[in-house]
Amino acid sequence: MKVVIIGGVAGGMSAATRLRRLDEDAEIIVFDKGPYVSFANCGLPFYLSGEISNHADLVVQTPEKLQQRFKLDVRPNHEVTQILPDSHEVIVCYAGQLTRESYDRLILAPGAQPIMPDLPGIVGAKNIYALRSIPDLDQIMTGIQAESTQRVLVVGGGFIGLEVAENLVLSGLKVTVVEQAPHVLPPLDTEMAAFVEAELARNGVRVITGQAVASFEDAGTVAVLADGTRLTTDLTIMAVGVRPASQLAKAAGLRLGFHDGIVVDQQYQTSESDIYAVGDAIVVQQQVTNKPTLIPLASPANRQGRQVADNIVGLPHPNRGSLGTAIVRAFKLTAAATGLSEYQAQQAGLTYRVVHVRGGSHAGYFPGSTPLTLKLVFNPDSGEIYGAQGVGEQGVDKRIDILATAIKGDLTIDDLPELELTYAPPFGSAKDPVNMLGYVAMNVAEGLSKTIQWHQLPAALAAGRQVLDVRDTDELADGEFKRARNIPLNQLRQRLTELDSTQPYVVSCFSGQRSYIAERLLRQHGFDVVNLDGAFALYHAVRPQDLIYQR
Amino acid sequence: MKVVIIGGVAGGMSAATRLRRLDEDAEIIVFDKGPYVSFANCGLPFYLSGEISNHADLVVQTPEKLQQRFKLDVRPNHEVTQILPDSHEVIVCYAGQLTRESYDRLILAPGAQPIMPDLPGIVGAKNIYALRSIPDLDQIMTGIQAESTQRVLVVGGGFIGLEVAENLVLSGLKVTVVEQAPHVLPPLDTEMAAFVEAELARNGVRVITGQAVASFEDAGTVAVLADGTRLTTDLTIMAVGVRPASQLAKAAGLRLGFHDGIVVDQQYQTSESDIYAVGDAIVVQQQVTNKPTLIPLASPANRQGRQVADNIVGLPHPNRGSLGTAIVRAFKLTAAATGLSEYQAQQAGLTYRVVHVRGGSHAGYFPGSTPLTLKLVFNPDSGEIYGAQGVGEQGVDKRIDILATAIKGDLTIDDLPELELTYAPPFGSAKDPVNMLGYVAMNVAEGLSKTIQWHQLPAALAAGRQVLDVRDTDELADGEFKRARNIPLNQLRQRLTELDSTQPYVVSCFSGQRSYIAERLLRQHGFDVVNLDGAFALYHAVRPQDLIYQR
Repeated sequence: MKVVIIGGVAGGMSAATRLRRLDEDAEIIVFDKGPYVSFANCGLPFYLSGEISNHADLVVQTPEKLQQRFKLDVRPNHEVTQILPDSHEVIVCYAGQLTRESYDRLILAPGAQPIMPDLPGIVGAKNIYALRSIPDLDQIMTGIQAESTQRVLVVGGGFIGLEVAENLVLSGLKVTVVEQAPHVLPPLDTEMAAFVEAELARNGVRVITGQAVASFEDAGTVAVLADGTRLTTDLTIMAVGVRPASQLAKAAGLRLGFHDGIVVDQQYQTSESDIYAVGDAIVVQQQVTNKPTLIPLASPANRQGRQVADNIVGLPHPNRGSLGTAIVRAFKLTAAATGLSEYQAQQAGLTYRVVHVRGGSHAGYFPGSTPLTLKLVFNPDSGEIYGAQGVGEQGVDKRIDILATAIKGDLTIDDLPELELTYAPPFGSAKDPVNMLGYVAMNVAEGLSKTIQWHQLPAALAAGRQVLDVRDTDELADGEFKRARNIPLNQLRQRLTELDSTQPYVVSCFSGQRSYIAERLLRQHGFDVVNLDGAFALYHAVRPQDLIYQR
Repeated sequence: MKVVIIGGVAGGMSAATRLRRLDEDAEIIVFDKGPYVSFANCGLPFYLSGEISNHADLVVQTPEKLQQRFKLDVRPNHEVTQILPDSHEVIVCYAGQLTRESYDRLILAPGAQPIMPDLPGIVGAKNIYALRSIPDLDQIMTGIQAESTQRVLVVGGGFIGLEVAENLVLSGLKVTVVEQAPHVLPPLDTEMAAFVEAELARNGVRVITGQAVASFEDAGTVAVLADGTRLTTDLTIMAVGVRPASQLAKAAGLRLGFHDGIVVDQQYQTSESDIYAVGDAIVVQQQVTNKPTLIPLASPANRQGRQVADNIVGLPHPNRGSLGTAIVRAFKLTAAATGLSEYQAQQAGLTYRVVHVRGGSHAGYFPGSTPLTLKLVFNPDSGEIYGAQGVGEQGVDKRIDILATAIKGDLTIDDLPELELTYAPPFGSAKDPVNMLGYVAMNVAEGLSKTIQWHQLPAALAAGRQVLDVRDTDELADGEFKRARNIPLNQLRQRLTELDSTQPYVVSCFSGQRSYIAERLLRQHGFDVVNLDGAFALYHAVRPQDLIYQR
C-alpha cells in the first residue's frame, strides 16, 4: 500500500507514524510545503518573549529522524499543487519543478491558514504579519528586534492574539489589541472575558473592543479603525482567525461544507474514495449541538490523524466528533472554556440557565490559595451540561478538564456534586468549586434559588427591586451598588423588621454564597427576593463603572 | 421539627446548615464532644511544620457565628452518651451533668476514631499520640516543641502518616515511619508507592516497611518491631488508620455492617426510623465493585451531610455510593489514587490489565515541565476503568480528577483519547498523559501490544527472553538490565540482522514509548517480542537493586 500524506504537522504526522506502527511494509510519503514538519505550532508565541528560548525546541522531529525511526519519506518544501482523484495521483512542485506521485490512499492534513482580510493598504505593507509557521515567526522576530520597533498592534483578541500580545509585552514592547467582537476571547462570555481584559490593562496592554481595522496607511505604519481612530504601529500581527486550507481539495472536486471545511465521513473519508482528510481543515460534529463546525485545535487533529491510520488499515476507530476545549494564559490569569458558551447556547436556541461560582484554587486555610470563577451553562430541565468557562490564577485548567470530561461522560448537574476529586489542603477543597457548580445549578433547577444575572440587574432595579447587600460593612469600601441597603448576613435574622416586606429585593454579597443563604432566609419569611448570581465580585469585574466607591 | 445532630464537623455541620437553608423553622441542636466544631481536620498535619501558621485558621466556624448566621444551637463539649430510639431522646453529658434531649429526627455524624492498637507498653506512655482533633494537635505541638524531642516515630505510612512525617521533617525533626504493609500508601500499588518511598528517603525519612510495632518499652521511648528491631523515639504518632465511631449506634441497637460501620439505606436512614447517619462512620457502596466498604474522607462526608438534610425535608437526593479518591503531598512529589488499585482488583477477582504511562506535566518544549507516571487498571474486554494512580511533581491532582470523573461517567479506555483537555504549552500537551493512557490501554486490549509488568520480568528472563534495550547508548549510564542487548531504536530497522530471530525478546526503553515502536517493528518482522510496560523508568523506581550501573 502506498500512502501519500499532504501536511506534516499534527494530524498528518500522527497519521504517518501510526500507520508505520500498524504496517511495516506500507510506502509512506509526507509532503509539506514548508521547510519544517512536526513543529510545535502552539509554542510559537512563546518564542517571541524568549520564554521558549531555544529555536530547536520548536522542531519536534526532523525528516532524517522520521526516516530512521519510522521509515517515512518526508519531503519538506514540496507543495502539492493538484490532486488527480481519477488517476490516483498528485502533482508536486519542488524547487520549481513539477512531478507526479501516485497513491493508493491519500490523506489530506493541510491545516488552516490565517485569515488576512483584504484591507486597503495591507498589500505592500512590509510590517504586517500572521503567525502560523516557523518562517512567520522568524520574520516577526527580525521585525521586533529592530530598534525602531516600539509599538505593536495585534489585530484580533482571540486565544492566539492574546498569547502574542502577552509575549510581546514580556519582550518589552508597547502593545495594542483590537478586537472586532464586543470583548476579547469571543469563545467566552462577556463577564468572563472581563477578568482577562482587566488583567491585560493591568499589564499595560491597550485593548480596543467592538472595533475593526478598516485600513492601513503610510506603508502599514498607521491602522485606521472603523470609527476613524488612527493607531500608529511599527509592526502589526493579524490574528483574526483561521480558515480551512481547503483550496486544493476544492479544486479536486472534493465536497466542502461548513465555512469551506472538507466534508468527511466517520472514517475520515472525503467525497472521493481513497482520499481522506483530518485536522483543522475538516468539518466536525460539535458534540453538544451535534451540528457541523470547525474546531482548529491540536488535540482533535492529533487524534484524528491516528484514527485515520487505524481506519485505513481496517481497525475501525470512527470520528466521534469534537467538543472544543481551549485555554490561554494572560499574564497571571488563566482563562479556559469547553463546550458551548452562553452566547452559543442562545444562538442555538437551547433552553439554558447559567450559574457562576467563585471558589479557591485549594483550601482557603492553606497558604497560596487564589480565587477562580467558574461558569456553567446547562439545561435546567434535563440537567445536561452545555459548557463551562473559568478564569483565575491557578487551577482553571484542572476544573475545565474535569468539566470537559463530565460533558464527554454525559454527566448532568446532579452528578457534579458526586464527583470525588483529589482533596488535601494543598490541592483542593472538600467541596471543590466543581462540586459547588453542581450544587448551585441544582438549587436553580430545583427552584430553591431564583437568580438574576449581572446584565439583568439594571432592569430589575428599574422594575423596583432594591439591592440588599449582605456583606459585612467593612467590605463596602471595595465598592457598592447604587441605592443598596446593607445588612450583614450574620445580623439579618435579628434585623428583619428593618426591611419592608412589600419591597422586592435582589440580594448580593461578595461571591453569591452568603446572598444565597440570605435569599433562603428571606423567602421563608415571605419576602419577594432574588439572588444576584456571581454577586458583587462578578458585577465588579464586568461593570465597575456602575458601582460607587465612596459613601 | 426538632433535629438533633451528633457531631459538628464535616457531615454533621453540612447537614445542619443545609437543613437551616431548607427549613427556617426547624429546631436544630448540634452536640459535639470536643471543644471545636467545624474545624479543618485535613489541615492539622500542616500546622506541625508551621506551613499553616495561624491556629485560628484551623477553625472554620464558631458556635457563635453558626448561631448568628444559621440559628443553630451548637453545643461543644457535650458528649451524647446514649440514644433512646423508642422515646426519641438522647442522653447528653456536659460538665459532668447528664441531661435528656428529645428529637424528631436524629442525625449521627460521629466520624471515625484513630485505631490505637493495644500494644504492650502503650498504656501509660506519655509520648504516644494520635492526630485527629485540635486538642490532639495542641498536645503534639507541646511535645515536639520540647527541646528533648529530636526523634519522632510515625507508626503507619498511609496518607495521614506521610503528611505527619513530612511536616515533622520540615519542622526539623528526625523521622522514622514504620508501615506494616509491604510499602507505604497501601491504597497505591507497590511500584507507584516506590516513587514516594524514594522521595521520603531523599528527604531523610527512614522508612521501614513490612514491619509492625510489637511493643513499647521504657515509658514509650523505645518501640520494638516484630523482628526485634528497637527504635528509640522521643515522641510517637500512631497513624495506623481509623475505625467508625459507631459505639453509640451499636449500644442503641442500630444495625452495623462492614467493619462495624453504621448501615444506612439510600436516604441515610439507619435501621431505626427517624435516626440517620452520615460521614466516616457509615458503610457505603464502592462504586466500582458495588460492594460495601468504608471511605473515611471529607468529600463524601460533606456531600452526605447535605443530602441527608435534603432527604429529611423531602427533597429526594439518594446516596449513590462513593468512589474513594485520595491524594498526598510528600515533599516535592504528589501521589494520588482513585477507584481500585491493581491489588484491590485482584482481590475482588476481577479480570483486569494495567498500563503505565510516563508523560510531562505540560508540553516538554515549554519550560518547567516535570515527569509524572500514571497507572490505569481496567477491564480489557469491556474497557471499563477500575481505577487509576499517579505520582509526580506537578499535575497529578488534575489527571486523577479527570480519571475520577471518567469513572463516574462510565467512560471506557476507548473514551480517554477522545477527551479534549485544555491544551496550551504552559498547561498540557496535545496528547495529554490521560489521552495516552487510553491509547496504550487500547493497544493492549486490541492486541496490538503485548506487555509484561515489572514484576514479571525475572520470570520472563528465566524463561529465556532477552532484554532488548532500545534506548540511545548514552542513556545506559543511568543503569542497565542484566544481560541486555542495546540497539537504539533509530538504528533498529537497519540492524535487524544482528538479532537472532529464534530468540524471544522483551523490549524496553526509558518510558515504554520507544520500546512499543520497537515491539511493533519486530513483531511485523516475525520476532517473538513483548514490551516491558513502564520500561526502565518504572523498573528503576521499584527495583533499582536489580540493575547494573557500570558496564
